[in-house]
Amino acid sequence: MELNRLLCEIGPADRSAMRKAALRQKTLTKPPGSLGRLEEVAGRLAGILGVERPVIRGKAVLIAGGDHGVVAQGVSGYPQEVTRQMLLNILEGGAAISVLTRLGGVRRLVVDAGIAGRQLPDHAELRSLRIRPGTDDITRGPAMSTDEAVRCVEAGADLAIELANSKVDLIATGEMGIGNTTPSSAITSAITGCGPVETTGPGTGRTPSELHHKVSMVKKALDRNRPDPSDPIDVLAKVGGLEIGVLAGVVLGATRMRRAVVLDGFISGAAALIAQGLSPDSGDYMIASHLSAEPGHRLVLDRLGLDPLLDLRLRLGEGTGAVPAMGIVEAAARCLTEMATFQEAGVLEGTEKQTGE
Amino acid sequence: MELNRLLCEIGPADRSAMRKAALRQKTLTKPPGSLGRLEEVAGRLAGILGVERPVIRGKAVLIAGGDHGVVAQGVSGYPQEVTRQMLLNILEGGAAISVLTRLGGVRRLVVDAGIAGRQLPDHAELRSLRIRPGTDDITRGPAMSTDEAVRCVEAGADLAIELANSKVDLIATGEMGIGNTTPSSAITSAITGCGPVETTGPGTGRTPSELHHKVSMVKKALDRNRPDPSDPIDVLAKVGGLEIGVLAGVVLGATRMRRAVVLDGFISGAAALIAQGLSPDSGDYMIASHLSAEPGHRLVLDRLGLDPLLDLRLRLGEGTGAVPAMGIVEAAARCLTEMATFQEAGVLEGTEKQTGE
Repeated sequence: MELNRLLCEIGPADRSAMRKAALRQKTLTKPPGSLGRLEEVAGRLAGILGVERPVIRGKAVLIAGGDHGVVAQGVSGYPQEVTRQMLLNILEGGAAISVLTRLGGVRRLVVDAGIAGRQLPDHAELRSLRIRPGTDDITRGPAMSTDEAVRCVEAGADLAIELANSKVDLIATGEMGIGNTTPSSAITSAITGCGPVETTGPGTGRTPSELHHKVSMVKKALDRNRPDPSDPIDVLAKVGGLEIGVLAGVVLGATRMRRAVVLDGFISGAAALIAQGLSPDSGDYMIASHLSAEPGHRLVLDRLGLDPLLDLRLRLGEGTGAVPAMGIVEAAARCLTEMATFQEAGVLEGTEKQTGE
Repeated sequence: MELNRLLCEIGPADRSAMRKAALRQKTLTKPPGSLGRLEEVAGRLAGILGVERPVIRGKAVLIAGGDHGVVAQGVSGYPQEVTRQMLLNILEGGAAISVLTRLGGVRRLVVDAGIAGRQLPDHAELRSLRIRPGTDDITRGPAMSTDEAVRCVEAGADLAIELANSKVDLIATGEMGIGNTTPSSAITSAITGCGPVETTGPGTGRTPSELHHKVSMVKKALDRNRPDPSDPIDVLAKVGGLEIGVLAGVVLGATRMRRAVVLDGFISGAAALIAQGLSPDSGDYMIASHLSAEPGHRLVLDRLGLDPLLDLRLRLGEGTGAVPAMGIVEAAARCLTEMATFQEAGVLEGTEKQTGE
């Protein structure tokens, strides 16, 4: 779907359904407020799906893969071919996200947004977009053209719309791209205004001197490209990544279809910053799954106004925080939708007052 | 099983299996340590089940119900008959824990440890122990006799052993008992030495003046009974509860059978304090599911040396924190057991170093 049309078709969550859900919570057989954040998440789902009693019919994770020219600057401990190898491992069932999706009954969609080297072999769970074979080195110029950035976002939105049309109500974001914490730090700096020292972390596990080098590469990318913080497509094109653009599109497509997006960690968060810049209403549809061990993630979540559900010190990506959190999101929906009321169960309501939490 | 025999048959977790699991983690297709707390939990499961690659065959939650004489002192916002009504609601499928167990594929076992009033109707998921029809008022004397306290613990252990023998590898604790945060605060004070102001919280949602009254009732119970902190059965008998004793037994029975116990919130934590006092090795088998909104829970977890997996501001009990956390525990086990190694997947290992977390 053409980006401008997509943005026009987006609206905020349904406040009336949220109010009805909040009223229903008070009638259920538990002390008011005692399900804590599960009540908050259930209320958000009511608003997103536009019903007092939300039902999750299906769950999927979209794992976008892309390569990064900046890897030439030694910002990652892994060689670039690992992006391709890990996408194959995901498809063949051996990666962490493969295991977690099997356990959680979550559909997988792997997207080749633009990896270097030869095409991945056909697979039922794979979509090849191949916008371009990896980005250019952002320390030397823009990652991609403006047109390519728009195409990433539009393609991601189309995939989310397709998932939504096949009864998926909860869409998790995931990614695989050697070097992709570096553009994520650059995006976070460009949009939040926080400096590279704050937004850059160890990624896959760097030593202090390597981290120092990575910070200087993020700074160089920002100095060289001067992305316009008021123009999210410009930020994506200049210092972003192909898989990051696709995930920004996934957020917007899910928003357009009134489905919940469960954000994974730092890279997904950078994509969500792009999406929220393009459409502030998209924030209504985001659920933050976990707080990454990557330090820039907290800055991203603060900017998005989101409070993560889990803090398991994960720093793997792939959607490995989002998929376990989907179980918590589903639990929230089920309690709101399926619990008996005091009246139905014949339970006395008591005289307790809601505490001010 | 007779308590002294039970305690003799308990041993620590298998350190050799834990070491093997830690070595295996390093060979799996992810940056070392990047699954954060999932790696830690998987390692503990390896030690508990005594295998390098742990498999969870079945999950169950044991929900112990009991009534409390101290309710006569106005410590709860709910009348005592709600214990019975809510146990029925759990069995009939309308309570939060009913919903969460259906979603999670978790077996339910409801135990009438000793509720006031008439017996619950027969149900396939119900066991009636009925040690006594509720405790006596702990502000006026002991909750129960020493013999009754031992019987609670032994009965709980027998139930956990029975679950373990039917291929349950993960046992969650849950409870329902109007007024049971009050004895839990008293137990926590008796065992940790922290005063009632620190261990007593709002429970089901009390006003400041009601909280003040509750604190004074906990203090009165401790002054009146003077439980011996070095004798956990004495603490249980003097200021405990029937369902708390059963849950202490569940922890010990699971420990004896080398199964993992997923602790729910504050009341389950008080039961775990009793269990750990009786058998320090039992701590090896405990996994803290969540941090309750009840303030005393943090003190309990500190004493047990446990770090909770979730912080969802729950304060409901029933096992509503433990059952969602079981999904995280299972995810941890599955990643360790099912992920491909670098060699199996043909993925390059890279040169990353493990960061010091």
